[in-house]
Amino acid sequence: MIIVKIGGGAGINLQGIADDLADFAGRDEPVIVVHGANALRNQLADRLGITIETVTSLSGVSSVLSDDGVIDLMMMAYAGMTNKKMVEMLQQRGVNAIGLSGLDGRVLTAKRNQGIRVQQNGKKVLLRDRSGRAFSVNDKLLHLLLDGGYTPVLTMPLIDETGTAVNSENDDVVAALHQKLNAGKIVFLIEASGLLSDPADEGSLIKNVDISSLKDYESRAKTRMRRKLRAIRKIVEFAPAKVMIADGRSAHPLVDAINGQGTVVQC
Amino acid sequence: MIIVKIGGGAGINLQGIADDLADFAGRDEPVIVVHGANALRNQLADRLGITIETVTSLSGVSSVLSDDGVIDLMMMAYAGMTNKKMVEMLQQRGVNAIGLSGLDGRVLTAKRNQGIRVQQNGKKVLLRDRSGRAFSVNDKLLHLLLDGGYTPVLTMPLIDETGTAVNSENDDVVAALHQKLNAGKIVFLIEASGLLSDPADEGSLIKNVDISSLKDYESRAKTRMRRKLRAIRKIVEFAPAKVMIADGRSAHPLVDAINGQGTVVQC
Repeated sequence: MIIVKIGGGAGINLQGIADDLADFAGRDEPVIVVHGANALRNQLADRLGITIETVTSLSGVSSVLSDDGVIDLMMMAYAGMTNKKMVEMLQQRGVNAIGLSGLDGRVLTAKRNQGIRVQQNGKKVLLRDRSGRAFSVNDKLLHLLLDGGYTPVLTMPLIDETGTAVNSENDDVVAALHQKLNAGKIVFLIEASGLLSDPADEGSLIKNVDISSLKDYESRAKTRMRRKLRAIRKIVEFAPAKVMIADGRSAHPLVDAINGQGTVVQC
Repeated sequence: MIIVKIGGGAGINLQGIADDLADFAGRDEPVIVVHGANALRNQLADRLGITIETVTSLSGVSSVLSDDGVIDLMMMAYAGMTNKKMVEMLQQRGVNAIGLSGLDGRVLTAKRNQGIRVQQNGKKVLLRDRSGRAFSVNDKLLHLLLDGGYTPVLTMPLIDETGTAVNSENDDVVAALHQKLNAGKIVFLIEASGLLSDPADEGSLIKNVDISSLKDYESRAKTRMRRKLRAIRKIVEFAPAKVMIADGRSAHPLVDAINGQGTVVQC
């Protein structure tokens, strides 16, 4: 099995990825797609005049405050437009894709976050929002679909213990999928040529990363890449997989990634 | 099997319908939900400053010109926000709902319309748009899901012969579902107490309609109700079903409908 995680940046070449997925779908190996839609969500918020609030926790981690408005935006941008466009692109290429948010058939459940501890007007307060951590995967449903010849295309929001839609991190979704489905190959397609030793320099690609050095890279990386590397560490610590971080902006992102462009995490 | 078609009007009580569906889902009879999101689509268009163009054909039928912008709006309003909110409401009530657009697993295919013949600047022109007529249903996928304990929640857009997302009429979707799945009961929940002899007078409810008089009502009804009645005629002409047209705005729309409030089409 191959899990393909597609980042939500504006520069990601979804058509090219769909072209590549159409090649793979013809072979024996089942594929699961997980995608974001960050750029579209933010663009939609701007156009609708909705402010997405970002808060910084006491421990210095900044994150989106996922209020009801943000969840609505995610339903429109992730589960609505991007998911259905991705499914449409795949269907046009002969891949029988089926798009699901975590809510659908409880395919991706999350454990609700307790809240974000922040400093507000000199006081420590706990801000509750609609976010959670990817917790479990309905592998029975995924197998039902894969066995039926369908390619699942998964996205936000996830579903919490009470059945409520929550925001979460897609990289953790990939880790949760691997823990249930044991994928042989996992590809992260991002808006960079791979893991860079200097994020400002595209030429500073790190071709190979050892499991033993993952923690080291993690501690030096910036927030988003740190989260991604932590998810990747969880993945390879759970069960071996060939993990690739590669450029989602090229003409053939997935083919390039499989062919060794980008960063390969060695198990 | 019960097919429940939920209209896309702003006054429809989705929470009440979800409450009722949770009662039914506990019983033996499988349920398929089909919903619109007209009001939300129009509201979203307004907020985004997108004009939805309505054109009138040479034969006098007015309809939305489904350009790319309209399809984007439908992905956000129908397949995104309304579908995922409906699934969320059902999940919160213990129903394992799974939301799909017609694109997903090609569950609802459409035959692309040839175009709309209109008069423009004194000339007759054929306007092509992204619309189609509900054509076929992937009953294998629906049975796979129903047998697995899932309740399908279906909506726009549909998918045409080339894999492209198209706009269509949900009432025709219900007819196409019945032709494949042979539902015993079909409920249309709308923003009126049922079929009215005078659309302006809620008190003019027609309690029972004979199949033989359907065509007569059809010819007298206004555009939207005419389309609905034509779809209902197709339904009952294909195979007997108890068809109900009832008020989607009450506290318990579905329970009321099943209990005989509204209009019942007698087979």
